[in-house]
Amino acid sequence: MSLSISIFTRVVALVLIGLAMAPAVEAADRDRLLSEPGVYGTFAAFSLDADWGKQDLPVRIAQLTVLKGVVEQHREKMAIDVYLLRGLSDHADVLFRIHAIELRETQQFLLDLQSSLFGKHLTTTAIMHGLTKKANYVPGMPDQVKAELKNSSEPGPKPYAIVIPIRKSADWWGLDQDKRAAMMLEHTEASAPYIKTVKRKLYHSSGLDDLDFITYFETSKLEDFHSLILALEKVKEFPYNRRFGHPTLIGTVKSLDEIIEILAQ
Amino acid sequence: MSLSISIFTRVVALVLIGLAMAPAVEAADRDRLLSEPGVYGTFAAFSLDADWGKQDLPVRIAQLTVLKGVVEQHREKMAIDVYLLRGLSDHADVLFRIHAIELRETQQFLLDLQSSLFGKHLTTTAIMHGLTKKANYVPGMPDQVKAELKNSSEPGPKPYAIVIPIRKSADWWGLDQDKRAAMMLEHTEASAPYIKTVKRKLYHSSGLDDLDFITYFETSKLEDFHSLILALEKVKEFPYNRRFGHPTLIGTVKSLDEIIEILAQ
Amino acid sequence: MSLSISIFTRVVALVLIGLAMAPAVEAADRDRLLSEPGVYGTFAAFSLDADWGKQDLPVRIAQLTVLKGVVEQHREKMAIDVYLLRGLSDHADVLFRIHAIELRETQQFLLDLQSSLFGKHLTTTAIMHGLTKKANYVPGMPDQVKAELKNSSEPGPKPYAIVIPIRKSADWWGLDQDKRAAMMLEHTEASAPYIKTVKRKLYHSSGLDDLDFITYFETSKLEDFHSLILALEKVKEFPYNRRFGHPTLIGTVKSLDEIIEILAQ
Amino acid sequence: MSLSISIFTRVVALVLIGLAMAPAVEAADRDRLLSEPGVYGTFAAFSLDADWGKQDLPVRIAQLTVLKGVVEQHREKMAIDVYLLRGLSDHADVLFRIHAIELRETQQFLLDLQSSLFGKHLTTTAIMHGLTKKANYVPGMPDQVKAELKNSSEPGPKPYAIVIPIRKSADWWGLDQDKRAAMMLEHTEASAPYIKTVKRKLYHSSGLDDLDFITYFETSKLEDFHSLILALEKVKEFPYNRRFGHPTLIGTVKSLDEIIEILAQ
Amino acid sequence: MSLSISIFTRVVALVLIGLAMAPAVEAADRDRLLSEPGVYGTFAAFSLDADWGKQDLPVRIAQLTVLKGVVEQHREKMAIDVYLLRGLSDHADVLFRIHAIELRETQQFLLDLQSSLFGKHLTTTAIMHGLTKKANYVPGMPDQVKAELKNSSEPGPKPYAIVIPIRKSADWWGLDQDKRAAMMLEHTEASAPYIKTVKRKLYHSSGLDDLDFITYFETSKLEDFHSLILALEKVKEFPYNRRFGHPTLIGTVKSLDEIIEILAQ
Repeated sequence: MSLSISIFTRVVALVLIGLAMAPAVEAADRDRLLSEPGVYGTFAAFSLDADWGKQDLPVRIAQLTVLKGVVEQHREKMAIDVYLLRGLSDHADVLFRIHAIELRETQQFLLDLQSSLFGKHLTTTAIMHGLTKKANYVPGMPDQVKAELKNSSEPGPKPYAIVIPIRKSADWWGLDQDKRAAMMLEHTEASAPYIKTVKRKLYHSSGLDDLDFITYFETSKLEDFHSLILALEKVKEFPYNRRFGHPTLIGTVKSLDEIIEILAQ
Repeated sequence: MSLSISIFTRVVALVLIGLAMAPAVEAADRDRLLSEPGVYGTFAAFSLDADWGKQDLPVRIAQLTVLKGVVEQHREKMAIDVYLLRGLSDHADVLFRIHAIELRETQQFLLDLQSSLFGKHLTTTAIMHGLTKKANYVPGMPDQVKAELKNSSEPGPKPYAIVIPIRKSADWWGLDQDKRAAMMLEHTEASAPYIKTVKRKLYHSSGLDDLDFITYFETSKLEDFHSLILALEKVKEFPYNRRFGHPTLIGTVKSLDEIIEILAQ
Repeated sequence: MSLSISIFTRVVALVLIGLAMAPAVEAADRDRLLSEPGVYGTFAAFSLDADWGKQDLPVRIAQLTVLKGVVEQHREKMAIDVYLLRGLSDHADVLFRIHAIELRETQQFLLDLQSSLFGKHLTTTAIMHGLTKKANYVPGMPDQVKAELKNSSEPGPKPYAIVIPIRKSADWWGLDQDKRAAMMLEHTEASAPYIKTVKRKLYHSSGLDDLDFITYFETSKLEDFHSLILALEKVKEFPYNRRFGHPTLIGTVKSLDEIIEILAQ
Repeated sequence: MSLSISIFTRVVALVLIGLAMAPAVEAADRDRLLSEPGVYGTFAAFSLDADWGKQDLPVRIAQLTVLKGVVEQHREKMAIDVYLLRGLSDHADVLFRIHAIELRETQQFLLDLQSSLFGKHLTTTAIMHGLTKKANYVPGMPDQVKAELKNSSEPGPKPYAIVIPIRKSADWWGLDQDKRAAMMLEHTEASAPYIKTVKRKLYHSSGLDDLDFITYFETSKLEDFHSLILALEKVKEFPYNRRFGHPTLIGTVKSLDEIIEILAQ
Repeated sequence: MSLSISIFTRVVALVLIGLAMAPAVEAADRDRLLSEPGVYGTFAAFSLDADWGKQDLPVRIAQLTVLKGVVEQHREKMAIDVYLLRGLSDHADVLFRIHAIELRETQQFLLDLQSSLFGKHLTTTAIMHGLTKKANYVPGMPDQVKAELKNSSEPGPKPYAIVIPIRKSADWWGLDQDKRAAMMLEHTEASAPYIKTVKRKLYHSSGLDDLDFITYFETSKLEDFHSLILALEKVKEFPYNRRFGHPTLIGTVKSLDEIIEILAQ
């Protein structure tokens, strides 16, 4: 059976490549991926199966070491952030946010993750894709609002991350461009007061998923985030959201080592 | 592999900390958490897996002893209430209501709970977060209604607890403030007659979850609770609820020792 | 560890109590529970797990004997009816209808059921609660209709039972009382011709569940039941049902011994 | 324990009866059940569990022999048709269509099926009940359409079967009888051209299930069936379907022996 | 038992036939199936079970060799394309697109697939059927648009495939033919600019599934695909889609050998 021999050889080769540790990630590349337009942002949420916690501690640590290897290898080419959802969200235990130039690279990372010994305990609960685009200031926006929006958020750790997927109603897309722009201006003005304490990032999703947008937030002040959403619920654009959340993913920002330590317990 | 050694050491240390019993909880702190604004209230409902009941009694008792330890340790910093849903609700078996100043502390408690030997038998069915706010009397409320609302509920045990999550329609938030206030006044007047027998507490949830509010009730007279909801269904504000319940969680208030005794059976 | 010893003692005591067979149920109490207002009616539907049928016959019989004991013990205080859904409904295998003065008693029965050896094979698929109320004749009802309604249903066995949960739309509760009364009169007149062959009972559920009503029917003539529902779909009150069924539970009325015999196979 | 002995005896007796092979089915009875009004038609769809395919071939054959026995025994009293959904439908693997005078007989067949060794591998995915009624020609139907409808379908095998459950909106039932009749006439005329290649049968379901109708089709020309549905989507009655399909079950008509042979593989 | 012997013989014969490798597929037939009207296109998506990855590598390779055999055998009669969804879609791991003259042949392929040793690890997540029809240019389409549509897509690999199922609202079918044609013209003009980089194919599904259309896309430029969908969301025909996606399946086009290699890991 020449087929099975050739598969076997290739698989062994791939496993050996996987074991060779990847070199350190270039911070500059990560910054570019996180700030430039035309980058794909993927949110992949997973639950751990019931067997995970029943394994002995050394087994779990060995598997988490493999997780570390897989993530570090792929960080060479893409930006990978990790979040702990367990204890705050009933949808999943961990969330990966991946920024890459090509969605195929993201697929390769998630394939390697899922075929690793650690990955065999993961159940995929949600994968959502979006694309970053150049910020498109709506015409007629007062200079003051523009200035506020350029304020970068306050420095310091922002431990909470929230992901809200959005689908606009068909009526929204049927509005003429002027009406949409006027409503987005009102939306932007309502959100401006929270720019310093609630950091945000927008991904365009139409066609890549059953969504139109994915909105991502980081904050240390969940009260402010609550007030921001309440303010957005009151503007005229809000009723054009056919879906807002469902799921709303809420978790805490963690380093890879922190996640590993928590999952080892 | 220095990685796995360092994880191992930290995990062992954490387990040892967990075994050291926590000091007694300060009742004063609990009162503050349950009455002040700016506190996060989390409702976490769990089902027990099929294996739980198949274990021998001594094993179950050992695991429930760990549950007791985890809850007592975290009660130092937060208020944790326990409810038995099994037999009254088809959604879950037990419910924890957790009040904390920071949602991260709640996450840490639920992580410790789920990674304990008892927690490995739990499946998360729902986690909902809300924030307490200062009661905001609607303008124009007659003094008599205000007086009624200040009546504390009758003393004595209130064995039943009901949790109803609410999502308002987009139309609600689009109404001007005066109209919303007038409708909330009618809502409040309709509910006033039941203030003595049905104790309630409101949590604001927008953005923290796919909800706008979480309403919590305690009563010994379910007939009165039924009449209260019927009265609320008849006011003009009710059609603005896009979601009311789904799930409605109903259970009985239990002490930690009572829950442990019931689950041991 | 004094905690685990005290739990152990109490649990053993409870098990011993459970083994002591309960005295015969008073028929008079059952009649009162089934006819008076202010009684809680609970519908609890369960599926049997895949392991149930794979056990040896003697094991299944032993477990069914325990089921018999649990039901008989609680029948002292409450009315418990049993239905076979398997083969007629894709939602569950068995249904219990429980009438009790206090919902806590119902919870205690279902806890004992689920923690029994038989109960460990049950998965809860639905629990719905309602409250019986005094029949409230709508004003203006012709004497003839009142007379028809007072006709008790024909004697003889009614093997089929159907449970239809109902949620009214918010518009319904927003109608003024006169309009609702006029529509309920039309509803009642449409259903009157079937009073003899289709026995029915109404439970009020608002707040106790994600429902407003639970309607329960018994009949030997499913054609008549079909015609009754068709007649009700044509009256003006019908469009105010936001949910009607979902699930519609259909099964056959069985004695406890009949259910045990069927499940033993 | 006299209880368990009596159960044991009865169960053994039932098993022995089950082993005695049933006499041949009368074809005349089957024809009557399939053509007369007042007959209950049940559609019961099942999935095979993951264990089924992992058993050894002789074990599977032994279990399929039991399936054959159960079906043949009940065919004495009712008409049982079998369909293979696997490979065409993602909802289930096999479908039984059962025509019986009493729904209790259908329940008995499905109970015997599910408690057989083969049945323990079945998961119920859907059970839907309907009632056949006398065809009720709408007033004003042109004689030509009537004549077309009386054309029996072309002879020859019709390998494909499709089941579409329907729920009408509340608005439909609120229309007066004349309007409904006019729309049903348009519906009938649109469907008439396909009478020869698409055989159909209607079941009335109101109250017996969360449906108003179950429509059943057989054809050898799926293109014609596609055109028929497209034609029905364009008539004025179509928007009154609140649910049309969900699920649409599609499969192939098989004899019991063919199904057994396929499942053995 | 003559029944079981005859089944056994036939099954053994079928297995032997299955082992005999099929001859090479005729490329001409494949082209015809992919371009002509009156062909059935089936999209069958599967997830791998948790056991798959836990098997030893040689076992997995043996099972994948069987997969190769099953696909090659059926490629004689039908066109079978394979896609990797894992890592890009949370709905399934692999997708088969099958073009056949008769849906029974597709069913036979999927039966053989699922009853193979590899197939026992597959869970069906979605099966959708459509029919290809002659392109039906809407009247009044400018010659320039017609010319654009005739442009074949740019040569070169198109690694990404996206499947979007569509259900039109009842209102759509209720429009008169002219209005629908005018809206389809606007739709076509909006999509024309992307004809070179986004290849597409339309399947008509009414009645064969709970859908009206299945749209299939291939591209190497997901940004262009995103822009195409955004353009389509803005035309007047869009609000007539009651369902658009749900699920949107996104994956990468793979050869059978590539899929086998990836799944072996």
